[in-house]
Amino acid sequence: MKLYKNPAKENWKEILERPSVNNEGIKKTVAGILDDIKINGDAAVKKYSKQFDGLESDSMLVSAAEIELATTKVAESLKEAIDVAYNNIKKFHESQREDIKKIETSKGVFCWRKSVPIQNVGLYIPGGTAPLLSTLLMLGVPANLAGCHNIIICTPADKSDSINDAILYIAGMLNIKYVYKIGGAQAIGAMAFGTETIPKVDKIFGPGNRYVTTAKQMVQTEGTAIDMPAGPSELAVFADHTSNPAFIAADLLSQAEHGADSQVLLVTTYAPMMEKVQIALEEQLHALPRKDIATAALSNSMFIEMDKLEEAFNLLNEYAAEHLIIATDDAEVLSEKVFNAGSIFLGHYSPESAGDYASGTNHTLPTNGFAKAYSGVSLDSFVKKITFQNIQPAGLQNLGKAVEILAAAEGLQAHKNAVSIRLETLKNEQ
Amino acid sequence: MKLYKNPAKENWKEILERPSVNNEGIKKTVAGILDDIKINGDAAVKKYSKQFDGLESDSMLVSAAEIELATTKVAESLKEAIDVAYNNIKKFHESQREDIKKIETSKGVFCWRKSVPIQNVGLYIPGGTAPLLSTLLMLGVPANLAGCHNIIICTPADKSDSINDAILYIAGMLNIKYVYKIGGAQAIGAMAFGTETIPKVDKIFGPGNRYVTTAKQMVQTEGTAIDMPAGPSELAVFADHTSNPAFIAADLLSQAEHGADSQVLLVTTYAPMMEKVQIALEEQLHALPRKDIATAALSNSMFIEMDKLEEAFNLLNEYAAEHLIIATDDAEVLSEKVFNAGSIFLGHYSPESAGDYASGTNHTLPTNGFAKAYSGVSLDSFVKKITFQNIQPAGLQNLGKAVEILAAAEGLQAHKNAVSIRLETLKNEQ
Repeated sequence: MKLYKNPAKENWKEILERPSVNNEGIKKTVAGILDDIKINGDAAVKKYSKQFDGLESDSMLVSAAEIELATTKVAESLKEAIDVAYNNIKKFHESQREDIKKIETSKGVFCWRKSVPIQNVGLYIPGGTAPLLSTLLMLGVPANLAGCHNIIICTPADKSDSINDAILYIAGMLNIKYVYKIGGAQAIGAMAFGTETIPKVDKIFGPGNRYVTTAKQMVQTEGTAIDMPAGPSELAVFADHTSNPAFIAADLLSQAEHGADSQVLLVTTYAPMMEKVQIALEEQLHALPRKDIATAALSNSMFIEMDKLEEAFNLLNEYAAEHLIIATDDAEVLSEKVFNAGSIFLGHYSPESAGDYASGTNHTLPTNGFAKAYSGVSLDSFVKKITFQNIQPAGLQNLGKAVEILAAAEGLQAHKNAVSIRLETLKNEQ
Repeated sequence: MKLYKNPAKENWKEILERPSVNNEGIKKTVAGILDDIKINGDAAVKKYSKQFDGLESDSMLVSAAEIELATTKVAESLKEAIDVAYNNIKKFHESQREDIKKIETSKGVFCWRKSVPIQNVGLYIPGGTAPLLSTLLMLGVPANLAGCHNIIICTPADKSDSINDAILYIAGMLNIKYVYKIGGAQAIGAMAFGTETIPKVDKIFGPGNRYVTTAKQMVQTEGTAIDMPAGPSELAVFADHTSNPAFIAADLLSQAEHGADSQVLLVTTYAPMMEKVQIALEEQLHALPRKDIATAALSNSMFIEMDKLEEAFNLLNEYAAEHLIIATDDAEVLSEKVFNAGSIFLGHYSPESAGDYASGTNHTLPTNGFAKAYSGVSLDSFVKKITFQNIQPAGLQNLGKAVEILAAAEGLQAHKNAVSIRLETLKNEQ
């Protein structure tokens, strides 16, 4: 843990910098995999599944029977918890629908926009040690709400060629019929380019390891959209004298257990809080099954004391955390000072893990400072907003002169003509 | 011009494919420029401005006096036309504001999202033969409406070291104080990494040549957001027996004059329309100042006759045009069949050039089939939508069990603990 007190502004950038990783080796490997899949389709996908995941199975598509069987094996208590999460996520994302508003910008000139679902979307759901069933809810629910026509899932099988039961149960619940047992960069390549078995999609969603995220970035430059660039998960907490150190320690640990590269940051205007949280961390850490991971992540973490409230929030804005907990009595007021963050958790009873699973907000959020320019996944991520215009003859008579002048100023005569020929016709009709 | 009649579905992909360009040489050049700017800042930027644009000037920042002087030189008629466009663009983009809706997803669990401006944005405005003053309106107006704190413009100066007067006039009108006389990949690098003179931005907007668009794509993979991937501009027109061939020819030419690589596509269910439009094209083409460019673009264009209306729209959806004009009496009804397009122009009096300049919709739109997954620029492009949650103690008591079960199912004990420790505290308080 690194401790700072009122660091000078010129040092913020360096202090807050995320650990950089050398990706060159990964890039080369991934580029090779993607090229191979482009040419050899399924054969290449299977080759890499065998090589990296030890999978020998010939069929990549999960059968309806497998999904049905999984459903019977999920505990009722887990099904109920999934229902709670499902309903809240659905309710919040439904509120993000945009009604069509026809705007008459000038008399006779009507403009509007309409949300139209992206037709083909691919959801990447990591498997392995922590099968992210919550990620499937976070991506599948808005994909369904948006009305995407073809929704497919790629998720790696375990060594016995099976997928986590809860993931298959949720796929069934969401009526997603195409679940493919593939993971890694080969899954991203298959969805981006299409193979004999796996359909090409327009946009790929979901988190993954460095091979997956590198592959997503590469296919993006070739024309497949992706949800957002991704890096290790992060949490920043702001605390003052009203904060509960045990709660904060629990929140920091919930972030730290994600991976050794997770980042946690505590910023406080109340000096004694630093030590109180450290003591609480010690108390809670030893009982965690993933304590080695959490310990590694904590060793990169930063505790920063700031005398001035404004400066504390300036620093938090410079960091632009994926998750920001404002763990104070006046959290909602303080949140007005935040302009860079992925998702903000207010007060003492809004732990990050509530948002990770079940409160309703999306947990697919911008990391690595991307919150300065990117939003998290929402219903918007699954639609295009197509603009429309319907210009009445009288509207074009109003607007036409301005268009002609502007087109002429840009030296684009044919743009002008497209208006002039219509105005001419209207004049002759009168 | 390539003519097709009811092409078989399996050939659509090939017929509709955009001309591909080999970018490898450009990528290498641009990567070199970006690396140089990262290390050498202003010195590198000036070196490339001299090398590529022949600029020797020492000062890159346009002075307030230059902006003021430009204002006096813009014709009143052009100022009035700019006002019309400004007002319509403002009105339409204002309608895209999202109100905050607090949703109580479960009792005591409140979630909402808030649009927060991206703090630092850079607008790239091409100069050269066709200075795109309209692009400055299309980017600057929503940037202002969103409330972006720092808005900068990069635009190349001409050989006499000056910027188009109308561009400077609009910059003044939009209260944008930082206009830098640089263009090309070096402008994108400067905005992405920052130099001694040019501030680093969070997101870069605007069209450009292949060097500019390649640079944008490269800086995106290093963490600077961009508006969207870009390719040559495109127009598709759907026509039937109600369409006016002269209007359609004028629209196709307005697209074709953009560049030799522009794409135009006519799809019609009314066989005689193909010839009628060809005749009208011949009539209109010869008078155009940019007729050589338009002729080159037309030689790559496609006219497709489709007997079946449904198939015609399936083909248009497969193409996913940047601009789609439905030039028929029942355009609004037909538009229900479209699910892939950037912007749709309805009926006989809605030419693309109206939307390019002044109707109010944005003209920065997804090309090259990206309309399958991307929206055009809108007010949304200049904000992040940050999610919030405020969970009351009673809310966490409602939600807590579900979170605990889901976290346990994912094997994330510390996520569970962050809830358990709070529920415990609430229990002890009761």
